Parts: sequence; C-alpha cells; structure tokens
Amino acid sequence: MSVINTNFAKLPGNYLFAEIAARKARYLADNPGARLINMGIGDVTRPLSPAVIAAMHAAVDEMSKAETFKGYSPDGGYPFLRELISEHDFKSRGADIAPDEIFISDGAKSDCANISDIFSPDCVVAVCDPVYPVYVDSNAMAGRAGSYTGDKWDKLVYLPCTSGNGFVPELPSVKADMIYLCYPNNPTGAAITFGELKKWVDYARANDSVILYDAAYEAFISTPGVPHSIFEIPGAEYCAIEFRSFSKTAGFTGTRCAYTVVPKKLERDGMSLHAMWSRRQATKFNGVPYVVQRGAAAVYSPQGRKETEETIAYYKNNAKNIREILQASGIKCIGGTDSPYIWVTLPSGLDSWTAFDRILAEANVATTPGAGFGSCGEGFLRLTAFGEPDDTIIAAERIARLLK
Amino acid sequence: MSVINTNFAKLPGNYLFAEIAARKARYLADNPGARLINMGIGDVTRPLSPAVIAAMHAAVDEMSKAETFKGYSPDGGYPFLRELISEHDFKSRGADIAPDEIFISDGAKSDCANISDIFSPDCVVAVCDPVYPVYVDSNAMAGRAGSYTGDKWDKLVYLPCTSGNGFVPELPSVKADMIYLCYPNNPTGAAITFGELKKWVDYARANDSVILYDAAYEAFISTPGVPHSIFEIPGAEYCAIEFRSFSKTAGFTGTRCAYTVVPKKLERDGMSLHAMWSRRQATKFNGVPYVVQRGAAAVYSPQGRKETEETIAYYKNNAKNIREILQASGIKCIGGTDSPYIWVTLPSGLDSWTAFDRILAEANVATTPGAGFGSCGEGFLRLTAFGEPDDTIIAAERIARLLK
Repeated sequence: MSVINTNFAKLPGNYLFAEIAARKARYLADNPGARLINMGIGDVTRPLSPAVIAAMHAAVDEMSKAETFKGYSPDGGYPFLRELISEHDFKSRGADIAPDEIFISDGAKSDCANISDIFSPDCVVAVCDPVYPVYVDSNAMAGRAGSYTGDKWDKLVYLPCTSGNGFVPELPSVKADMIYLCYPNNPTGAAITFGELKKWVDYARANDSVILYDAAYEAFISTPGVPHSIFEIPGAEYCAIEFRSFSKTAGFTGTRCAYTVVPKKLERDGMSLHAMWSRRQATKFNGVPYVVQRGAAAVYSPQGRKETEETIAYYKNNAKNIREILQASGIKCIGGTDSPYIWVTLPSGLDSWTAFDRILAEANVATTPGAGFGSCGEGFLRLTAFGEPDDTIIAAERIARLLK
Repeated sequence: MSVINTNFAKLPGNYLFAEIAARKARYLADNPGARLINMGIGDVTRPLSPAVIAAMHAAVDEMSKAETFKGYSPDGGYPFLRELISEHDFKSRGADIAPDEIFISDGAKSDCANISDIFSPDCVVAVCDPVYPVYVDSNAMAGRAGSYTGDKWDKLVYLPCTSGNGFVPELPSVKADMIYLCYPNNPTGAAITFGELKKWVDYARANDSVILYDAAYEAFISTPGVPHSIFEIPGAEYCAIEFRSFSKTAGFTGTRCAYTVVPKKLERDGMSLHAMWSRRQATKFNGVPYVVQRGAAAVYSPQGRKETEETIAYYKNNAKNIREILQASGIKCIGGTDSPYIWVTLPSGLDSWTAFDRILAEANVATTPGAGFGSCGEGFLRLTAFGEPDDTIIAAERIARLLK
C-alpha cells in the first residue's frame, strides 16, 4: 500500500503557468537585456482603486485598536460583504440569491479546486477542451480523471470547443455528474448566450448533474443578452454552483477575495450541497482577512463601482486594439469583447509551443500556448489584455508581423 | 452511485466551535442583558502590533500605484517572508530549513486539513485523544476515518492523552502512516520535551510514518528544553511536516497568515512530498495577500519582535492567573505555562457539556467542553487566556466557585 496519493504521479509536467514562468526565466537568464511584454498569465497590472485603498487603510486602522480589532471572521464571511454581493450581483439581475448562499473565500481557483471535496470520487467529470487546467488537475488529484495517455485523461469527458461550434460545446453524449463551464471563457474569451446556457441547465436538471460555473470574468461582459450569472437561468438553483472573483473585476489577484454561490435548493442523494460546502469550509478554511473583506465591500460603493468600471474599460480597450491589429493583418481571432482574453488562430502547421517560443524570442512577448489548455487548444494562442496600452499595441503589432 | 461524497453524511453534529457559537447565541437570545466572558474559542483580542500596522499601511499604499502594485504572489510566498522565517524560526534554533521548504498560506487550519490531499485514502491515521477536531473531520471527509460509532471513528488510531501519561501519548501499538501531533497541545496546553518528541521521530523513521506536527502555539513556549520545532530533532526532515501560524503568535486570526514546512528530504514511495505539496498549492491555492505577507514580515523586525513578545506576555499572565485561581480552590488543571490553554479536571460525575451549559448560565463564561475534543476529553474543560485581564480574573473566580 502507498502512503502517498499516487494520482499525483500521473500528472504530466508542471502546472501550465509554472512551466511558462520557467521558460520566461530561462530566456531572460540567456538574454539579460531583454524587456518582455507580458500577454501570458492573466494577471492584472492596474492599482487598486482609490475607494478600495481608502477602505483598506480604514480597516487596518481598526485592527490597530482593541475596541475595533477583528479576530476570526464569521463562517462564510462578513454579512456586510455577503449582503452587498447578494444585492448588486444577483438580486439586481433577477437572480434570487440570499446572502447566506454566498461563501466568501480567498480565490475562485481555490474554490473551483476544493469543491471536489464534496463530490464522490466516482463522479463522471466533463470539461471543455481547451480548458482552464485547474479543473482537470484538481480532479486528477482526486482520482476522477483516471490515467493520462498521450494528451487525454481516460476518465474525463471532453467537450470540444472549436471554431465549428463557436467555442460553446455540444451537450455530452454520456451522462456527466460534474460539468465545469467557464463563461466568459478562459482561455477562448467566448461568451455564452442565455439560450445556450439554458440548454445546459436543462440537461443538468434532467441528468442530476451539477454544473460548476466559473464566472470569474463576468465584469468584462458588455454584450446585451449575455447572462452575468448562471442563476439568471430559471432552475439553475437546483443544479449549479457559481464561482466569482474580485481578481479580474477589481484587481485583487494579489489581494485575494472571491466567492462561491451554493444555493440551498441544490441537493443530491438526499444531501444539501449548501450544508456540505458550509461544513467543508468551516472545517478546512478560516476566512478572508477582515481588511480584504472591507476592500471588497468598497468595490460596491458608488465611487468604487465607477473606478472599477474605468479599469475594466482600460483593459477592454487593450483587448479591442489587440483584436483589431491582428484582424487587420488577416489573422483570425475571437474573444476580447466580453473578456480580457483573445484566442488567436495560428497559421496552419505552426504548433502552439513553437509559436510561444518563437514569439518569446523574436517578439519578446510572453503568451500562452493553446495546447497548454488541452488538445483542442493546439493551433491557438491566448493573449491577455492586462498590459500597458502602448506596450499592448507594440506587442500586438510584433505578433501580427510574425504570424502573418 | 452517489454524486456526493457520502463521507460527509457520517460526520456527527456540527463543527465543535459552530456548536458552541450556536449555544452562546441561544443563551444570549434568551438573556438579552447578559454579558458573557469568552474563554471558549481560542481567538485573540489584542490589536495588531504597531510595527505590523505600519507595514500593512505601507503595503496598501504600494497597491495604490501602478509602479509598486502587486498581482499574484510568487508560488509558495514572497522570498522576503520565507527568508525571514527560515532565519528566525529555524536556523537560529539549529534547524536547517531553507526558504523554499516553507510554504506561506492563509492558515494552519487550512493546511492541516488540505495536507490530506497528498496522502493515500488508505493511510492509517493516528490522532491524540483529546484532539483538535480539524484533523479528525478532514480525514473523515477523505474516508480515512471509517464510520463513527458511538464516540469513535472505527478506522482511526486513537492515542489517549491522560493525566496518567502527562498528556503525552504512548507510541501506537499498530503501524500508523499519518500521525498528527500538536505541541504545545490544543486542547490540553501540555508541552513535549525534546526526548519525548525524539521517540516519535524515531518511530516515524522506523515505520515510514509521516508526522504532521502542528506547532501553532510555539510562541507560547517558555520552558527551557521544550523544542520550538520538530526540526530541532535530528532526522525529522525525513519524516515530518510542520504547521506554524501567525494567528496566535501575532494576533492574525482575522488577518490570516501561516506557513507549512515540507522538507525536501521527505520522500515516500519514491515521491518527494515537497514536490507534491508544491504542486497541490500551485493548483489549488493562489497565495496570501501581499499586504498580509508584508504585515507578517514586520513581526520579525526588532520592533515587531518586541511588541509581539509583550502581547504574548499579556496572554501568559492571564493563563498564570487562571491556573493559580483554580489551583488555590483545589481544582486540578494543567497547561498555561507553554500555552494559552488551561485544561481543567472537572469534579467527578460532572460531564463536560453539562459543565459548559452550567458555567455559561451561572457564571456567564463561555468555555469549551473537553468531550468536544474526543472521548478522553470527557471530564475536562478547556479555558483560553485571550481575554481582558480583569475579566479573566473574574471569570476564573466564578468558575472556581462553581466547580469547587
């Protein structure tokens, strides 16, 4: 018998972004003068908004006095934050999500991965291809992915997202118990319509599946009719869990605040998934810093909302420039409209890690190779719009010249 | 087949501290005028130290400008913090722990629970009795505890900690793969000597066990010869993982920073546990807020160390008063010397939940019933020393009168 979890030995290579960081570091070690423009990892660059900064300073001051000091956070997070989220992110869109159905956490990545704890190890898991690697790797660690052979896990159900289906997959042909959907999508930048998402909710209700809906990029949606939450779809409260984050919304990648919605109506096998996640979090998590929860609450103030929208507009303008520069050179790409990601079709015959290495060396731009997100990502490249505007234009022009 | 993890259905009742919070809330609802003194949950009450506050304000300011803004933390945490920890908490005590063997996290509770991910579901788990419930519940969720029958899990190996063995258990009679030890102990407040801890390291090396060593209360040690880290014991780097926290050390229960040490020499079944934990964290965690890591680093500055020691001394003086007041009334208790916890022997025939309810109602003091920590905790009560000095004396005197 093994002492360790042998599923870890089946994981191929590094976590994608660790591999990219290593290749960048190697290139910079070999080329000490080089200045790389980052369009790789989706990390924000704009400072926290003044409203958030003011709230965090005030909260730090509260921590400095015994009368206002805060110890352990209430389980699930402070009511002041859960109430703001319920009101602004859900009720205002017609989604009836109560504050105590919202669990404040340190990250959508943590929650997307840790949610695995409340599901059976025998669940059939469906993921899009290409896909954010965390869904796959966390299920591989839990034994639900089976074995990795070639470029696929033999127990996962892959849902190809291709130009043929507009990067929104068809329903699975076998019954899936857990279905990860991410819209606006990482990595393709594609959005999903109300009607398309409704198909998935209907499927999940008919098949007792649970949809794990990652809406971390919701703040980038501008197209009318694109749902901001799966709970805008009637019946989703019986079959979905939603992950949201302040990381891309308000620049919190280094500040860490997110939340997960588990509706009380969501039950399977006679158990409430809300009660299970509540127990999981009370046992294995100890809350988000008070100072950070105060910062997150300030995102919902009138000033915070205005400032947040300005930052999102800044990134979206970058996305628009990338898209237009590439398309002007005849390069096919999608995304960048309701998302900070642009998904670029590579010239036929150019594989994505080769394109990554060439663009790194010849254009001095860090990108993300599509193959890193799954076999259907081969032949594509993901670009992010989180850079400085002039750099973004320079990088897009260099890439356009190289790929044309 | 179930969609959910059916192990959750086997968990008895609530998480202990949630149950205590519920009973307190019920009492306060029935007695609106009552002022409770808290000696229950081990939550700190003193403000963050001025050095930490200054560092956090400075870091918030850095987050307000594009030039100094910080996005995602490096995997494992910022080098500035890992280097301080390596130097001050390990090398200064003769333990050769490198910065990259230290993983910064949001809590020792999270890590003690999540570490389960890298072990086989078939591992035999040994825990002390009484025990911090997180070790038990997290393993129960992972299926390693078996079924709960009466007051025990049928697959766990219990290590009784009684007055007979000075609350340091004997080695297990069956081979254990994962062994949770917590010293200074929660809940008993007992410390472990170098010689006693060496026996466990020798056992683990002989049996290929891994010791999961929770040293969250290390800052309270004052007795000479009591090890501050398991890595002071030669050979522990081949058989132990250590959990440490800023929660009790520096009042971070609401600020959230901790770390876990996984030595590179720790291998099982041909796999490096350091590599496995590194992969687990890169996949399922996204780092601690920059502002918080800066606050934690300030704990190691000369000013920060002095202020932290003053706060620890404040709590330890409370512990001393509790111990002396109870002992003066002839009540037996241990702990409170190298720990903020006092473990009180109840009068014969009084069970600990009854004592909890009586002390809540008649003395208006919230405590923690020993039975909440396991069957060997029956007949005991845990008191915490994190209160205000005058309140602490009042509470100890009321309890002494009730229990005498």
